[in-house]
Amino acid sequence: MFLDLNVIYQRIQTDKRILGRVLSLVESDNDRSEEILNYLFQFTGNAFRIGLTGPPGAGKSTITNQLARHYRSLGKRVAIIAVDPTSPFTGGALLGDRVRMSDIGNDEGIFIRSMATRGELGGLTKKARDLADVFDAAGYDFILFETVGVGQSELDIVEAADTTIVVLVPESGDSIQAMKAGLMEIADFFVLNKSDRPSADQAITALQTIIGMREHDASTWLPGIIKTIATEKKGIIEIAGEVTRHYNYLISSDQFIKNRVKRFQQRVKQIVEEKIIHELWNLHPLELVIVGNEQNQNPSSPYYTAKQIIGAYKNSREQ
Amino acid sequence: MFLDLNVIYQRIQTDKRILGRVLSLVESDNDRSEEILNYLFQFTGNAFRIGLTGPPGAGKSTITNQLARHYRSLGKRVAIIAVDPTSPFTGGALLGDRVRMSDIGNDEGIFIRSMATRGELGGLTKKARDLADVFDAAGYDFILFETVGVGQSELDIVEAADTTIVVLVPESGDSIQAMKAGLMEIADFFVLNKSDRPSADQAITALQTIIGMREHDASTWLPGIIKTIATEKKGIIEIAGEVTRHYNYLISSDQFIKNRVKRFQQRVKQIVEEKIIHELWNLHPLELVIVGNEQNQNPSSPYYTAKQIIGAYKNSREQ
Repeated sequence: MFLDLNVIYQRIQTDKRILGRVLSLVESDNDRSEEILNYLFQFTGNAFRIGLTGPPGAGKSTITNQLARHYRSLGKRVAIIAVDPTSPFTGGALLGDRVRMSDIGNDEGIFIRSMATRGELGGLTKKARDLADVFDAAGYDFILFETVGVGQSELDIVEAADTTIVVLVPESGDSIQAMKAGLMEIADFFVLNKSDRPSADQAITALQTIIGMREHDASTWLPGIIKTIATEKKGIIEIAGEVTRHYNYLISSDQFIKNRVKRFQQRVKQIVEEKIIHELWNLHPLELVIVGNEQNQNPSSPYYTAKQIIGAYKNSREQ
Repeated sequence: MFLDLNVIYQRIQTDKRILGRVLSLVESDNDRSEEILNYLFQFTGNAFRIGLTGPPGAGKSTITNQLARHYRSLGKRVAIIAVDPTSPFTGGALLGDRVRMSDIGNDEGIFIRSMATRGELGGLTKKARDLADVFDAAGYDFILFETVGVGQSELDIVEAADTTIVVLVPESGDSIQAMKAGLMEIADFFVLNKSDRPSADQAITALQTIIGMREHDASTWLPGIIKTIATEKKGIIEIAGEVTRHYNYLISSDQFIKNRVKRFQQRVKQIVEEKIIHELWNLHPLELVIVGNEQNQNPSSPYYTAKQIIGAYKNSREQ
């Protein structure tokens, strides 16, 4: 990948093989990947980012695939970033890939990228956003983040989206009250999948109660509830309709740009803190910190030692 | 608390009221508290620190109190730092205090300090260590950390000790395999409380299996299992005996000083990272980070922006 940055930018517009290699490079997180991300950033901002999450088995993958296919039928290019934090190795993600590939993976306008955790979830959030920037610069119109909604980091991933969809099934209804509050709060709207089951009405009532409990006035966005039967491809157009309704709300209320600025700031915060801590302990290995000073036998307190390390770090120059 | 640092050091040796005020000051975490901790640090290192943890209801408080009373009977001064992370307010800790006070709190040679979380557990670990330093400098011979063993931060707290005791009851036996692995791994030895119950033998067999699974050779420390009936004050001297056995092992194997150096380094690490991140965002408020540059309309990538912020921070001088 020793191509000129502008050549990379040109090639990823049309060449899925090159795009795949750039994605891998960016995911591997080295100096070159940062250079590429810095260059590509100027071409980002055009893709609309949608996050899909929900409990395991709710049908997120099926709905994500069908939504991708729907946007594709409108002539749009769609990228899917599927994050599987429950799988410690790539096994789960790879299996998911194979199922997906046979379904929509052969479409030239759809690119599917799976990520699996290797221990550190924070890094996964950062890299999911980096990959999205590459897709954005490569001219993809929609970027769909899909992840199971079980922990804070998964919520962070879908919060990197302009619109966040929480997918539930009627069975989730009983436990909705007990569900991770965060999952209910991040929803820009809900999808109730398998809505032909008898308990669907009850689940909708429960969801309406939760939505009604949000503080709101006339200008507040209130999440809709879209009923789907993904196995029969029912309700997908309605999901796309609700995405459009939310997009219009974001634009008319100025929230679109406000949200993007806030997400940019959060991203900068994460990068700064990771970088500074990494750089610091590279310069002053923790193992060299000793109790006391061998010359004068006067032990330095942890706070005094900390202050000295910070001072020395600030005096170090950029390489 | 505008006393000269040396006067503070002198007074906390004998005056429990002044000691209490210094502890509160240190807990409140300001510039003055750091000054005090820096000064007192040279007088620390003499106290032996013991951590006690285990599942709720195992009898940790009773055992901690009786161990304190035992050391007191040998003429030693004992400080107890009781951390109750399950209580979001001071309620739980205060109630515990009152029970304790009526038991051993009137003893001039015993000082009990309760801490309750107010949201951030990381900070609690740091402050528990700061309080221990004050007790150490004040001439206390033993510092007992007591906390319920339910999460990582609680493990961090007891890991600040020279010897870590995990207190279980026979009922814990059934679920020992399923218990948080960390809790079993940090134990320098186990206390099986309520050991007169029928299922005690079974629990001991389970514990022995777990201990046997640790990698070991002839020179490795192998945790003992001490049987107690705390309500009848049975087994407390045996706990003290196992503490002594462990202390002798630490000294003869050089682990004592190695462990203390490692803990010092971990503490410096935590302080440096908290300080640097706090200072950084004070100097460069995150809210001022904008997408792009309004002058030239050329958007900067998050990585480029992060690099600039780190550079500016390193160029800033200490106040």
